[in-house]
Formats: sequence, structure tokens, C-alpha cells
Amino acid sequence: MTEDSAEEIVTAALLIIGNEILSGRTQDANLAYIAKGLGAIGVRLREVRVIPDVAATIIATVNEVRAKFDYVFTTGGIGPTHDDITSETIAQAFGVPWVLHPEAKRLLLTHYKESELNAARLRMAHVPAGATLIDNPVSLAPGFQIGNVFVMAGVPRIMQAMFDGILPRLKRGAPMLSRTVRCTLPEGIIAEGLGKLQDRYAELDIGSYPYFRRGAFGTALVLRGTDELRLGAATAELVELIRSLGGEPLEGEAPEA
Amino acid sequence: MTEDSAEEIVTAALLIIGNEILSGRTQDANLAYIAKGLGAIGVRLREVRVIPDVAATIIATVNEVRAKFDYVFTTGGIGPTHDDITSETIAQAFGVPWVLHPEAKRLLLTHYKESELNAARLRMAHVPAGATLIDNPVSLAPGFQIGNVFVMAGVPRIMQAMFDGILPRLKRGAPMLSRTVRCTLPEGIIAEGLGKLQDRYAELDIGSYPYFRRGAFGTALVLRGTDELRLGAATAELVELIRSLGGEPLEGEAPEA
Repeated sequence: MTEDSAEEIVTAALLIIGNEILSGRTQDANLAYIAKGLGAIGVRLREVRVIPDVAATIIATVNEVRAKFDYVFTTGGIGPTHDDITSETIAQAFGVPWVLHPEAKRLLLTHYKESELNAARLRMAHVPAGATLIDNPVSLAPGFQIGNVFVMAGVPRIMQAMFDGILPRLKRGAPMLSRTVRCTLPEGIIAEGLGKLQDRYAELDIGSYPYFRRGAFGTALVLRGTDELRLGAATAELVELIRSLGGEPLEGEAPEA
Repeated sequence: MTEDSAEEIVTAALLIIGNEILSGRTQDANLAYIAKGLGAIGVRLREVRVIPDVAATIIATVNEVRAKFDYVFTTGGIGPTHDDITSETIAQAFGVPWVLHPEAKRLLLTHYKESELNAARLRMAHVPAGATLIDNPVSLAPGFQIGNVFVMAGVPRIMQAMFDGILPRLKRGAPMLSRTVRCTLPEGIIAEGLGKLQDRYAELDIGSYPYFRRGAFGTALVLRGTDELRLGAATAELVELIRSLGGEPLEGEAPEA
């Protein structure tokens, strides 16, 4: 293999911004969607932080993670009310003014009459200077990208539409492939052989997850990696391991309860 | 009011440890449970991080957040398999040996025969030296507390039992009270008056959350704070604000769709 064929590792972090998640009032529904979407194009989601609507916290966190990861995604805090401070605090994090974006205003005017576009709604047409817009096909008020930071709405239906729209802008890594093998053996019985399997396939990520579904306990073993052949070989060895311990291997995820 | 009556603010962070959350395979179900439980005893959940099963990341993160917050809770990574590294990495974070806890071994022996307590399962009886155990009434393998860090299982049913058990160990702050008022006015119409209300009640946290349920758009306005009288006064003003804008205020959360 030449140097050129070495796959670049592309990394990302997600910031979930909002007091309502930290209070437990709202169950986050964006992490898993973003994680799966990034995984499919080979971008590794390395860290997620849930932080409050506090300017100093948002600024410090954005500046920390945008230096550490290739991409940063944020959800929440870009609406018209006083608690929607993500957009202006990200301008502060980048040290740029927070300015009216003419195209964003034009988009809002396709939805609101001029007389309805009050000061609060006009806040949604402001972005950090130099930002490019992210389309919002659901309710028009756009998200934006500045540098390697992508700022999206918190409402899942809007976030999903925004995220799907920006996927083509991202660098791709080798897609993460995964195989799942289930069995009814307890983790404590598989653990020793599984650890040795992980040692032999150090480039794969092998996880073991107990589950309880439809009245039965079981263990789901998940193998993840970018090399299909190695993944297939490790899966075959795992199937053999389970059989050698008296278990019955079942490939694929269990149906939902 | 005397100095003594000033309520102490008690803060917490949560670390959700596990590749399966970052890959999107598993939807976290622990954050909201812990957030609500802490809120009820007046402990403020200030930050949540989701991090991978990587020793260096766990060590650095635990050491950062245990210095910053009164309490740190962790979920995930304390089972018997090779990917369960939370317990031993927290020993490293504290710079103490990872040792067999006789009481933890005794607990496991009430579930497993001596011959079944293999090396993998015996890992679940090891804790950082100096740690105290956290009961696991579901499957016996305990969690533990060391310093201000509480280490719990990731499986929600087990995590919940562990968390309920440690609540009496925690310092309490003034309980966070909340009121919710809904209306069908759009956020952009309420925003100006709501911002002024927040300014007048700076000690409260007022959030605005658009929702779409049973085919209808609406806005949920959530007021949170520790002073019941001030919360009641702000809620009354909010109800008046909504009426003055032509809306119909409804108190309480909407029924689930």
C-alpha cells in the first residue's frame, strides 16, 4: 500500500445547547440521528456535550472543540426568543460581528409579511460575519456554517432537514461498517474469548451489550471497523467462539420489543 | 435574611461513557432520569459529556469535571468484558490502585457459584482503592463512589436502581420548581414581552419551546426557579402577556401525542 491509500480519519463533536435537555424536560433526539449520518460517511463522532444557554459556557466550549475536531455541530438556541443565544455567542467565539444576512432576511420575507418581521424574528436573519447559510426547508429560518462549525436548530424535524442538507459539504472518511451477533450466553462467559478476539483484531472496535427484550436476556456483540474483509473474518471467529461455548449465534440486531 | 439562609448552589456533571452512544446504535435513556432526580433535590446538572471507551479520554474528562462540579456521575463501562474500562480508568484518574473489594466479591458469590466466578466476572468486584460500593439490587455487581464521583452501570434499569440508592448521600440545594404555560401564539409574537419578563425576573430561568403535537403548533413557556412566590408572580404576568397578545394561556404540560 502506498502512503496515499491511507484513509484520513475525519472527526467531529456535537454540542447540544439547551437548558431543557439539562433539566430533563426534553429528551434529546438529535444525537443518534447525527451519529448515524456521520458514521455512514466515515466521520467519527468523538464527543458530545450538553451545555446550558449560558454565553460564557457556549463560547468556551465552541472554542475548545473547534480546535480539537475537524467538525463541530451544534443544535438548539437559534430561534427568536431571549433564550436563543447560540448565534450571537458563536459570533463572539469567532471574534466577529453578528450581522444581518440579506439572503436570510429575504428567506424570512417569503414566510412573513414585512409588517410581521419584527425585531425578534429579524434576529433569526442575523449570523456571524462571514458565515454561510444552512437551508431550513421546514420553517425557513436558516442555520449557518462558520469555519468548521455548523449551527442547526434544536427541533428534530428541522435539525434533520438541515443536517441532510450539509452532508455533501463534508469531507468523507472510510465508512464505518458494523456487524452484530447476538446470543443468549451471559457476558461473563464470552468475556475471555472476546477479549482475545479484540486483541487479534486491534483495528476493530468490539463492544458487548447485555439486553433484555421480549422477556429474555441476551448479549449483543457489535464489531465495527472500516475493512470489510477483516470485519468478516472477526465475525466468523466470533460465531465460532459462541458455538464453542454452547451458545447459538444469531446475526443482526434483535427486533425491537 | 441572614447569611445562613442563603441557599448553597450544588452542581453536578454527568459522563455518559460508551462507544454505542457515540455511534448512534443506542439511544441514551439515563440523562433525563438523572436530570429530573437531581432537580428534585436541588442539585443543578450543569454539563453532560458523552465520551468513548478510551482510557486517556475518560481519565482526562473525569479529572476535569470532578474539579469543576460538586458531583460527577458516570454511566456505562462497568461490566465484565474487555470494553468495560470505566472502573480501572477511574482508579488511574485518582492515582490509586484498582483492588478487589471483599464485600463486592461476597455479593457476586450470592449470585454465582465459586466455580462460575471467573476472571472476567471477578473484574466486577474490583474498585479503586478507597471507594465505597453503590448497591445494585437488580444484578448485584455494584457501582462505587470515590471522592465526589459516582460510577454507575449503563443499563437503564440498573442505573436507575443505583441512582435512587445514592440520592440520600447527596447534599441538597433549594429544589428547582417549574411552571409551564402553553399557548398557540408563535414564538416571534411572544418574544419581545417574554424578554422583558425575563429581565424583570432575572433570578428565574424562562425558556420558550415550540412544539408540534396532535396536528397543532404551539409554544411551551417554562419558568424555573427556587422561589415559589416569585415563580407564581412571573407566571401570572406571563398569563396576562399571552392574553394581551390575543392568545389563550393553558397551564401545565401538553398531553403526549
